[in-house]
Amino acid sequence: MNESELIKRYFLRENKDECIKLGIGDDAAVIQPPANEQLVVTTDTMVEGSHFTAQSKPYDIATKLMAVNLSDIAAMGATPKWATLTVTLSVIDELWLHSFSDGLFSYLDRYQVSLVGGDVTKGEQTNVAIQLIGIVPTQKELRRSGAVLNDDIYVTGEIGCAAQAVRILYENNQNPSHLHENSILSAEQKNALYAPEPRIEVGRALRDIATSAIDISDGLLHELNILCEQSLLGAALTLDQLPIAKNCEMNLALTGGDDYELLFTANKEARDTINTIAQQHNCTITRIGTMNLTTKIELFYENKLFAMPKKLGFDHFIGATDGK
Amino acid sequence: MNESELIKRYFLRENKDECIKLGIGDDAAVIQPPANEQLVVTTDTMVEGSHFTAQSKPYDIATKLMAVNLSDIAAMGATPKWATLTVTLSVIDELWLHSFSDGLFSYLDRYQVSLVGGDVTKGEQTNVAIQLIGIVPTQKELRRSGAVLNDDIYVTGEIGCAAQAVRILYENNQNPSHLHENSILSAEQKNALYAPEPRIEVGRALRDIATSAIDISDGLLHELNILCEQSLLGAALTLDQLPIAKNCEMNLALTGGDDYELLFTANKEARDTINTIAQQHNCTITRIGTMNLTTKIELFYENKLFAMPKKLGFDHFIGATDGK
Repeated sequence: MNESELIKRYFLRENKDECIKLGIGDDAAVIQPPANEQLVVTTDTMVEGSHFTAQSKPYDIATKLMAVNLSDIAAMGATPKWATLTVTLSVIDELWLHSFSDGLFSYLDRYQVSLVGGDVTKGEQTNVAIQLIGIVPTQKELRRSGAVLNDDIYVTGEIGCAAQAVRILYENNQNPSHLHENSILSAEQKNALYAPEPRIEVGRALRDIATSAIDISDGLLHELNILCEQSLLGAALTLDQLPIAKNCEMNLALTGGDDYELLFTANKEARDTINTIAQQHNCTITRIGTMNLTTKIELFYENKLFAMPKKLGFDHFIGATDGK
Repeated sequence: MNESELIKRYFLRENKDECIKLGIGDDAAVIQPPANEQLVVTTDTMVEGSHFTAQSKPYDIATKLMAVNLSDIAAMGATPKWATLTVTLSVIDELWLHSFSDGLFSYLDRYQVSLVGGDVTKGEQTNVAIQLIGIVPTQKELRRSGAVLNDDIYVTGEIGCAAQAVRILYENNQNPSHLHENSILSAEQKNALYAPEPRIEVGRALRDIATSAIDISDGLLHELNILCEQSLLGAALTLDQLPIAKNCEMNLALTGGDDYELLFTANKEARDTINTIAQQHNCTITRIGTMNLTTKIELFYENKLFAMPKKLGFDHFIGATDGK
């Protein structure tokens, strides 16, 4: 099987998107973007040894890769549309490709994203990357820098589930980079780790409501810190209300990462609207704090100052990131 | 140095493109594409061990990576605009990053392409990929499938220089995947291998002239074969006129690959216009054959049938590709 046959067999599907004038099979894809929409462009990579192992199910690698990329599009309030894929493999393993392709298309189909191009190369280590292009109406994107003084701070869903799952696996000598056959995780924990749900619909609904947004994949405090820096403000969080996963420690939930939830800010007058969005999309949205002028983050629990964890979150090169 | 500092230091440059509403530093980039233009999207990867070695100059890796991607945009008749980069590295080597960044921006700046996003990850093997978005006026893209019966077939530049360079290196026990310090190659051969010139300007000039186009990176016959299949036609090539690099054997020039030239077809009435384009862009454009109804490729040399090489070109998984 050559590269072109491989692509036809595993990555070429009929697409129904009228914007796509030319899909896989030429020197490049051709897309007619809709008028009055901006493009939103992101890319994320997963590497054997860092993000998964040789024992990882290719299906899980693909779903996680898609979720990570989709979550960045969600955090912009955008709609995902077109993806390209780069895959580096040591051998053509048809079982691997079949499973990877199934995982990939499970997310592509669910979010109506079309795969328009890619590149398959040979290398010792498996390395997969998605580049995702979304669209958002002109000037409607949600930026990290838009938070305003006295805005409420919100987080979607529950946090800490993935970090808690990783801790359980370590304690049981299982590798969190792949799903062990006799995994002791609950179905919910498995999904949090290997197939998180990107908040596409909620992100889109927040376009005219949120003043800023970021996804909290590298840890809530780490990402809030970025949002504060870019908005030139500080924040006070009330941890009593934090929607923490069952049995998860507070510090782990605050810094653990791998949560594909949205952290966003909005004017106090938007509270009712945000409640309605939460109900409409069947997604918990919790108000957890307020933006202020302090230029730092302060944590409060039971009306007392709560010690800032020493590490705010995760950086792919240096590991855990320092608190200020 | 964390990932965000690394990106700021090596990959963040001021961009002057008014289409870019938000560049590196948020969950995703935001681009307002110009009206009446289509997007042209491509991606190409380079992997340590396959495309370069641990001894390769990072500058050379970057220039080749850019050239390969730009060549795909050129073959569509498009203008390259926005790139994202994924880099997998085993360690943060500042010398490596400095040199890679210099090579990358030498091409980005020259072709006025803006880097709008990326991802830096850790892995044992160096792996770099560019995703490139270009623009082309609506319905003006050059496809592989557009060749018409009796069209002339043309190729830009000279072919076989890179393949000839690879052969020379092998004969002298030097690794063609990286530039040896005491390389015996000429400056022209070095450029052909490590910093080829994508035919962006010529591709754009051919928008209203060429009926089809493809870049010949995997070998002239291999790519002509694809163009014939997609256009549902055959081709006759007159090898007497083939613009072959000095000292390069005919079969090597026909199948060697790594030439980032354009193969294209045009109506016979366009000959004068094509001569003018060649002069305007200081680029040799040679008429080398005719599209016909045979549904196969026939080669002629000194008015006699010339034997088809057994291998048409290169495939990254199976190596050389078979002739029909």
